[in-house]
Amino acid sequence: MTQTKTAPHRVVIIGGGFGGLYAAKAFAKAPNIDVTLIDKRNFHLFQPLLYQVATGSLSPGEISSPLRMVLRNQKNTHVLLDEVRDIDPATKTVTLTEGSIAYDSLIVATGASHFYFGNDHWQEDAPGLKTIEDAIDIRRRIFEAFEAAEKSDDPVQREAWLTFAIVGAGPTGVEMAGAIAELAHKTLKHDFSNIDTTQAKILLIEGMDRVLPPYAPDLSAKAQESLEKLGVTIQPKSFVTNIDGDNLTIRCNDEEIHVNAKTTIWAAGIRASKLGRVLADRAGAELDRAGRVIVSPRLSLPTNDDIYVVGDLAHFAHQGSRPLPGVAPVAMQEGQYVATAIQKQLQGQEIADFTYVDFGSLAVIGQNEAVADLGFVRFSGFLAWIIWIVAHIYYLIEFDNKLLVMVQWGWSYLTRGRGARLITGEASLVPVKVKTPVTEKVEEKSVA
Amino acid sequence: MTQTKTAPHRVVIIGGGFGGLYAAKAFAKAPNIDVTLIDKRNFHLFQPLLYQVATGSLSPGEISSPLRMVLRNQKNTHVLLDEVRDIDPATKTVTLTEGSIAYDSLIVATGASHFYFGNDHWQEDAPGLKTIEDAIDIRRRIFEAFEAAEKSDDPVQREAWLTFAIVGAGPTGVEMAGAIAELAHKTLKHDFSNIDTTQAKILLIEGMDRVLPPYAPDLSAKAQESLEKLGVTIQPKSFVTNIDGDNLTIRCNDEEIHVNAKTTIWAAGIRASKLGRVLADRAGAELDRAGRVIVSPRLSLPTNDDIYVVGDLAHFAHQGSRPLPGVAPVAMQEGQYVATAIQKQLQGQEIADFTYVDFGSLAVIGQNEAVADLGFVRFSGFLAWIIWIVAHIYYLIEFDNKLLVMVQWGWSYLTRGRGARLITGEASLVPVKVKTPVTEKVEEKSVA
Repeated sequence: MTQTKTAPHRVVIIGGGFGGLYAAKAFAKAPNIDVTLIDKRNFHLFQPLLYQVATGSLSPGEISSPLRMVLRNQKNTHVLLDEVRDIDPATKTVTLTEGSIAYDSLIVATGASHFYFGNDHWQEDAPGLKTIEDAIDIRRRIFEAFEAAEKSDDPVQREAWLTFAIVGAGPTGVEMAGAIAELAHKTLKHDFSNIDTTQAKILLIEGMDRVLPPYAPDLSAKAQESLEKLGVTIQPKSFVTNIDGDNLTIRCNDEEIHVNAKTTIWAAGIRASKLGRVLADRAGAELDRAGRVIVSPRLSLPTNDDIYVVGDLAHFAHQGSRPLPGVAPVAMQEGQYVATAIQKQLQGQEIADFTYVDFGSLAVIGQNEAVADLGFVRFSGFLAWIIWIVAHIYYLIEFDNKLLVMVQWGWSYLTRGRGARLITGEASLVPVKVKTPVTEKVEEKSVA
Repeated sequence: MTQTKTAPHRVVIIGGGFGGLYAAKAFAKAPNIDVTLIDKRNFHLFQPLLYQVATGSLSPGEISSPLRMVLRNQKNTHVLLDEVRDIDPATKTVTLTEGSIAYDSLIVATGASHFYFGNDHWQEDAPGLKTIEDAIDIRRRIFEAFEAAEKSDDPVQREAWLTFAIVGAGPTGVEMAGAIAELAHKTLKHDFSNIDTTQAKILLIEGMDRVLPPYAPDLSAKAQESLEKLGVTIQPKSFVTNIDGDNLTIRCNDEEIHVNAKTTIWAAGIRASKLGRVLADRAGAELDRAGRVIVSPRLSLPTNDDIYVVGDLAHFAHQGSRPLPGVAPVAMQEGQYVATAIQKQLQGQEIADFTYVDFGSLAVIGQNEAVADLGFVRFSGFLAWIIWIVAHIYYLIEFDNKLLVMVQWGWSYLTRGRGARLITGEASLVPVKVKTPVTEKVEEKSVA
């Protein structure tokens, strides 16, 4: 009896973040499946630690793994460095910058970015933290601010250089505020001659009435207490109404506050990748207000079950009272689920709906300080911090990065040093001979 | 009896490379001396390992130490992030971009850069390796070349993408050629679907008749043998006469050779920092052909003994038949000598002339492969490689970097992986929505 060899089932994955990469890895031993992972960057970025690059603790290479390296032993998987222009569900084709690629199943995992609520021009004065380039830019701004304060003779200017505003007190905002406070109050304390870095003002602005709004109120209170101990000033129930250079206008309870901050970091708002719009136009997908794609209980489009959406781009509302949050564990589980579902479908097996297994939420505030909500128990402090470290080390995809980050962290912990606080890149405080143009930002990371 | 407290002796050091930093450190416990170290960057760069950043083995933060961190415990030393515009020996003043600073003793240590022999426009197509930004740019070019080859359907284009030309076979050129050959023949071997990376051509172009011309001929022969085994093609007695995009014209024995290489790296020529010119105009210093300052046996200007020049900017011809080479050990010893000489002079002690203690030369070719000339003995292979590693680890200024680089190297050695091979920065193969302008290069790193 001869077995008929059928052509392999072609899976195309767009995006090498947590959702896309974990989907690709879950196809590792799938028989007769051909996987193509498309990303416009050649590396997977471990985004939860990006704030540590922005504050000089880690180097970019330590939180990035080349996609080809991660997937090198997976013979059925190809990596394509390209950007997706269009998706055509009729011909089952993805259009790239050059050429196109056909799929049998498509997994869209292009994530989301921050959102300026219609004020995109604020980006120049208040960058967000999404890419390696963002992190290096923010790192440059932070360390140049201290250098500029050191040089300034004008007390008003000096105060402005030593004022850091962080907009949004979600996990990223809290982590940034905590890390900058530690820089000012601990790491850099003895580094300057003319300024007292502990006089720096770190302002954390949040629209809701507390920090970490998605967390339980007692954890928010704990986090607030820890942040204030570190030297962070929390400004709740406040909205930024204008940013103009270093002039920040904040509205709080019908009152207007003006702040002069040379460094503002944007950690608020969410806008889904533009491929959400493409799926709406081309495949009739429904989007939520943030532009995320509303998916079926099996993470596919209700209108087209060959197209799956996972990670931050997906709006999954079939579990709990709110859609699943845009965090790495959700994306990882969704990616793995879809890869398994596609394999089961090909084998004619039953597929259960997706269920997110929530192992809890963690947010780090500073050295020895984090908050944890494991569902059955909530706590903060040193133990939460240790759990945060173990969880992050565990998930750093490639072992060499794990080892490196552990050594780096161990050493930083003992010395409170931050060896990666380099001022590199385009703009520079010190006028250089050839004026370097400020590189324009790509608005969204998300379209792979 | 009352002791009269005199005002501290003001030492100004320009440049935080090996010469300047080792001078600053040698003032650590000097009584009644006030040191100011000026650099336009906020970190010391461990330049001997820069090629490892350019080839994706190390991250920038791993070979850089913030100057303020290195000198934080040295109470008599201030770090100033600024650029020197002028030096006035009459008023003993250094002019900065903003303001000026007075000195009693001045140490100029602003180094040298590569030189295009009057063809500065080649820089765009054939970048040199001097700064962190250079290394990231070259890293991007190398890894984008493999990606472009993977995507190309045209065999001619594909071959051009897989051709890497390195101009100059001194230590940097040899290290770059060896590292790129290892990438192509080992590290990336299994990473691509459409290309065989071992087909890559690595061309090492040298004007002299052998690689590593300053070394003994038997070591050059050994190095050549090792490079060829790694897959490097050596093109001796050859001069680049034109670079136009990816078209390279080479003259060899009155013959013209045309090479189509998408990646060309410049590792030839030396031009001293512009402050050499300033010292010539303002203090009557004599310069050699490369623009280096000819110094006295005590490393000061023959015309002005308050001004010292150390490191790559200095032409010291009082020992041996040739001036001392522009390598880190020379700069370190010169910096330390000058700091000691200034202290002795203040105490009215005798000062001996500078003597360079040569512990030998080392050049690395690849994994397990280096050449060593320790004066009394010359050898190559694994032992030389181990000595190279130990020497470099020993001199990595800050302990955290030492530890990190050791872990990184240990892991890379075992896995042959290169985790830091990120494509980041401005230009990108993949057209992005907003066109990013190519950042213009600052021509010289050297003026601190």
